[in-house]
Amino acid sequence: MNPQPVIAVLAGNRPLVGLEELQRQAEVRVTDNAGLPEALAGADILYLWDYFADGVRQAWPAADSLRWIHVPAAGVDKLLFPELVASDVVLTNARGVFDRPMAEHVLAAMFHFAKDFGRASAQQQRRQWRQYATTDLAGSSVLVAGTGSIGRCTARLLAAVGLRVDGMGRTARSGDADFGTIHASTDFAAVAGAYDYIVLAAPLTPETRGMLGRDVLAALKPTAVLINVGRGALADEPALEDALRSGSLAGAALDVFETEPLPQSSGLWELDNVLVTPHLSGDSRKQLPELARQFAENLAAWKAGRPLANVVDKQLGFVPA
Amino acid sequence: MNPQPVIAVLAGNRPLVGLEELQRQAEVRVTDNAGLPEALAGADILYLWDYFADGVRQAWPAADSLRWIHVPAAGVDKLLFPELVASDVVLTNARGVFDRPMAEHVLAAMFHFAKDFGRASAQQQRRQWRQYATTDLAGSSVLVAGTGSIGRCTARLLAAVGLRVDGMGRTARSGDADFGTIHASTDFAAVAGAYDYIVLAAPLTPETRGMLGRDVLAALKPTAVLINVGRGALADEPALEDALRSGSLAGAALDVFETEPLPQSSGLWELDNVLVTPHLSGDSRKQLPELARQFAENLAAWKAGRPLANVVDKQLGFVPA
Repeated sequence: MNPQPVIAVLAGNRPLVGLEELQRQAEVRVTDNAGLPEALAGADILYLWDYFADGVRQAWPAADSLRWIHVPAAGVDKLLFPELVASDVVLTNARGVFDRPMAEHVLAAMFHFAKDFGRASAQQQRRQWRQYATTDLAGSSVLVAGTGSIGRCTARLLAAVGLRVDGMGRTARSGDADFGTIHASTDFAAVAGAYDYIVLAAPLTPETRGMLGRDVLAALKPTAVLINVGRGALADEPALEDALRSGSLAGAALDVFETEPLPQSSGLWELDNVLVTPHLSGDSRKQLPELARQFAENLAAWKAGRPLANVVDKQLGFVPA
Repeated sequence: MNPQPVIAVLAGNRPLVGLEELQRQAEVRVTDNAGLPEALAGADILYLWDYFADGVRQAWPAADSLRWIHVPAAGVDKLLFPELVASDVVLTNARGVFDRPMAEHVLAAMFHFAKDFGRASAQQQRRQWRQYATTDLAGSSVLVAGTGSIGRCTARLLAAVGLRVDGMGRTARSGDADFGTIHASTDFAAVAGAYDYIVLAAPLTPETRGMLGRDVLAALKPTAVLINVGRGALADEPALEDALRSGSLAGAALDVFETEPLPQSSGLWELDNVLVTPHLSGDSRKQLPELARQFAENLAAWKAGRPLANVVDKQLGFVPA
């Protein structure tokens, strides 16, 4: 039982939803990065509402009573610094809340390229009426790298619109409920050439970093389109840019980048066959209340001494299935 | 039995797929608009491969033996001139072939607005990293005007991705397989305000012309988005442009226009909340062989004296269900 915990809330610029309810349940210290060490001293819980914040490692020495960090995000790669991994502090994330918006973003991006709306918009700016043929998604094939909750929700949505959906995970499997075949990620280059669309929806771990490298890019169909909603570092970004410039890859919808915000100097901004979105694939308008509700439920469990939901395996870097 | 018919083929600029096979089945006269009267003299069949061509009415007096016109298109409104309607000439269309590409175009356009990819592209051009919240299609509501094969295919696809789908047709109905409620088109203004998306997929007939008028536009949610893949004249285009400029309608994906090509002078080109596409929603890359196959099958039926598929009711203006 933890009747009246102390929660440090790193709020950042996002509107803090559910604060009043939290204040009924706990002693709440709302802070920014600069105030984080002071807020962490004596705190039981860190609620990382601003999950793009990066001050936690610096403030770590002040965390003298910390037992739980909740991140209302899916990927926790940035947070897994060695001191946290080695500690007993429990880490939970927002598994599930982002699944549907991210799946919709993936499908929307596939349609953007299949229907060539980039070309339509460019023609519209020139007041140019020129017809062109489009691609059906029905019957096209897609490989979804990542068989966690986001990858699975994406697979189900894509199958519902008639795509043939395979997956890629740590180990090869068949007979899965959501995927046709699941390939092992070590076979990425060997199988990539069979697909019209490649979706990266994996967590960033030492195993997955750079998984989309020059070998995979060289194996892709020249008509293939990549959608990355996972992490920028899943791809070798310079190699990806080369492939997009040379036409060995037809297009890419990139929501995540090795460095975010994407630097002004990046060549990706200017490519006609790239759709850049600013790390928003999970950001549905419905999101914030859901994230607040999810933390409130976990907080109620914590106060009652019940097990927490969505506990990250800090060695693996994600919530195991 | 019609063993060796004479077919006039108005080819236009589209690559004529299946010509060799046709030449084995019939005497084929490939022509353009200028040569149409000569080609029609003595012809049994007119195959209007270039379905944007408009020379048929002028050439009509030369059609001394014509018994059948096939249009490899869905809408036949432009072709229904009084002399043809009054004649015994049978008119068939390409019902079914455009259903899936058009349904995908509708869904793609809805995603374009739900995920605000127009904004993403504009930001990309400015190398601007600014996050924004998006809308989930799951749980959104859509009204599909048109309960023919295109409207139904669209309804099924939209339902598959989690939208709540109602329809609108000549008469109100419930218990339909593809739609929740089907409203009567006379109730359009009364029901329009309940929907997040409005899709126009109806044939253009005297009854449907101008169905999206000022009364309906005034009733829409200001967050609503319109997708028109039917015919431009289904909407009151000046009223539509006013609504888009004033913000009483959030956005529109327009594939069809009162005048096509859309004139350079149209104000629709310049609106940020409009996606203009040049009448291509049905134009999948897979299309041309399918259209050729469909005519070949109907030609085989005709030669054997069997009934033709997809016969247009020339009074109604479409193929009845």
